Amino acid sequence: MMRPSYKLACLRTARLAARHPLPRTYATASSDFVRIVEVGPRDGLQNEKQSIPVQTKIELVNKLAQTGLRTIEAGSFVSPKWVPQVSSPVHAQHNEENRTLTMSQMANSSQILEHILVSPPTTSHPITYQWLLPNIKGLDSFAAIWEAKATGQSGSLPPSATTSEISIFTAATESFTQKNTNCSIAESLARFEPIMAKAKEMGLNVRAYISVALGCPYEGPTVDPHKVANLAVSLLEMGADEISVADTTGMGTAPKTAELLKTLSAAGIENCDLALHFHDTYGQALVNTVVALEHGVRTFDSALAGLGGCPFSPGATGNVASEDLVHLFHSLGLKTGVNMEMLSEAGAWISNELQRPNESRAGKATLAQMKKRSP
Amino acid sequence: MMRPSYKLACLRTARLAARHPLPRTYATASSDFVRIVEVGPRDGLQNEKQSIPVQTKIELVNKLAQTGLRTIEAGSFVSPKWVPQVSSPVHAQHNEENRTLTMSQMANSSQILEHILVSPPTTSHPITYQWLLPNIKGLDSFAAIWEAKATGQSGSLPPSATTSEISIFTAATESFTQKNTNCSIAESLARFEPIMAKAKEMGLNVRAYISVALGCPYEGPTVDPHKVANLAVSLLEMGADEISVADTTGMGTAPKTAELLKTLSAAGIENCDLALHFHDTYGQALVNTVVALEHGVRTFDSALAGLGGCPFSPGATGNVASEDLVHLFHSLGLKTGVNMEMLSEAGAWISNELQRPNESRAGKATLAQMKKRSP
Repeated sequence: MMRPSYKLACLRTARLAARHPLPRTYATASSDFVRIVEVGPRDGLQNEKQSIPVQTKIELVNKLAQTGLRTIEAGSFVSPKWVPQVSSPVHAQHNEENRTLTMSQMANSSQILEHILVSPPTTSHPITYQWLLPNIKGLDSFAAIWEAKATGQSGSLPPSATTSEISIFTAATESFTQKNTNCSIAESLARFEPIMAKAKEMGLNVRAYISVALGCPYEGPTVDPHKVANLAVSLLEMGADEISVADTTGMGTAPKTAELLKTLSAAGIENCDLALHFHDTYGQALVNTVVALEHGVRTFDSALAGLGGCPFSPGATGNVASEDLVHLFHSLGLKTGVNMEMLSEAGAWISNELQRPNESRAGKATLAQMKKRSP
Repeated sequence: MMRPSYKLACLRTARLAARHPLPRTYATASSDFVRIVEVGPRDGLQNEKQSIPVQTKIELVNKLAQTGLRTIEAGSFVSPKWVPQVSSPVHAQHNEENRTLTMSQMANSSQILEHILVSPPTTSHPITYQWLLPNIKGLDSFAAIWEAKATGQSGSLPPSATTSEISIFTAATESFTQKNTNCSIAESLARFEPIMAKAKEMGLNVRAYISVALGCPYEGPTVDPHKVANLAVSLLEMGADEISVADTTGMGTAPKTAELLKTLSAAGIENCDLALHFHDTYGQALVNTVVALEHGVRTFDSALAGLGGCPFSPGATGNVASEDLVHLFHSLGLKTGVNMEMLSEAGAWISNELQRPNESRAGKATLAQMKKRSP
């Protein structure tokens, strides 16, 4: 495989040449369809403080599958050996908690994966489930279950109604990458090579997250969009099938989002290769989404009920709520395939299970209207 | 005074001819300045369930005055005799509660007005205080205090650092007007004539709200923008100095907001005569605000901490939060004169006083950042 390079004369040509020839599943059928990647069960629940029974997670995935969502991030396979950089006794304690949490998350994800492979939710449309894997050990754990279940039941692949994809993540700043994955950005890319190779062998698509693309808790609100573009190009060259550009801190604004998207386009990255992942920490997620829609992006990540806090701003809001996003898209005449009432009910259900406030405004308003119609 | 007419050959000419020749205070100095009308102390607190001590209200007004805000809706003078239409025993009980609440609000507003006239908050810039008056009795109560204090202390007008304005309200649909003010839209306009005349005699500017301009709880999400435009023209003809077009139910969407603004422009209503008053019930307030900004509107109403619920969607969110609006404007390079940190602190303070969640995302994120800097 070609090694990533940060200085390509023609990024687009290089990227096209390096692209893995697997069939694409990401491109949207028409420009008025918006694909929502529901990250609630993984990204959302992972940032909730309490521990959550695996049965609740499975029920959440089942409920989401019924709403019409096509893509659900269902779990993560993080090696229990992986612990972020320890820089102080407080961090050490925090990391110990993280390690315990991580191990339980991984055990949970194994059960969720088994559930989906053995008895996937019955839906009228095929669903793609995504699994976050930070390193090759995570992929090995995933692959052990996947291969056993995929071939063990009937000797054939899992039911065609479900597809699995894997996700990897790196970040747009060195400080964030060091603090979160104990390595440089270049090292994180090198770690992806065996993952990418094995995923392709297994016939799995790979999604790559670029965190802190519009603001970093350590380096501040200004992140060089060219760095994000270079990183995105490297990841696509390595074989990534989609890049999810994440505003992890919610520091993104309309002008910064527009500048980043222009820079990504100039670097040869096409809209169909992109997803945007906004956090509503400063309430700007929908405004930034409109900027991205106008630029032509048609894939967006979100979490029902705005699940997940913001680890860098305790007390603040996290992921943009899926219900708010769906209401926005429908209001603009775009299609999502999602049933707003069912999604709002799922958001209310999980908020109640977690005993946390429902952070979706459109969700709460929809529920109030439903209650008024049939009190 | 010319009677309002719904069929004018040239609305703009008619409006200009009918306009009261008082000096204007609304037009913004430059197009990159956005005026925020802080409606928290009146519109916000009025829709909170619990009763609020007048001292808390006065302290809130004082805190807001220090943030750099130029316009604050400080109270309402509602006649205790005014009660919305009674259609059922449940409504009757609700109306009895309303009557009690209304009387206490009015008593409170008298004290707030006295406070502002006698010892206004010391600020580096002049502040305009607005007072909602639904009918001539409300204005009489207001005028009694205003005239006594304005001339009683030193025989002269109140300190030049403060200006008072009055607000009146009607609605874009007949059903809403009937249910809320017990009269037709035409009757509500007729009621305004003596108010407008007396206000002008007193040298006070008049702001007119048009409620449910983008969706009505009784007639649904589709409200004819031409009705809103006709109403706005009539109000301007009668002498209103500013029209605040209110999305009371939060049903407004980007396309509906754009259509309404185009219709208002076509009817000869200039942007400098307009304020937009969005509710964040469905999370669309900032998206709609951007649509209005692009249209050229530069005055927006909001309530700190998103004070005020939505009486038509119990459990849902109400007024858009001032902190979210300020963060949006600053992110776009616009000026507001508002200190974001002081506003966020005021929002946290009043949320704590009321023991309610702080509904401002930007406010909570700003507070988290402030805490991180000096824990």
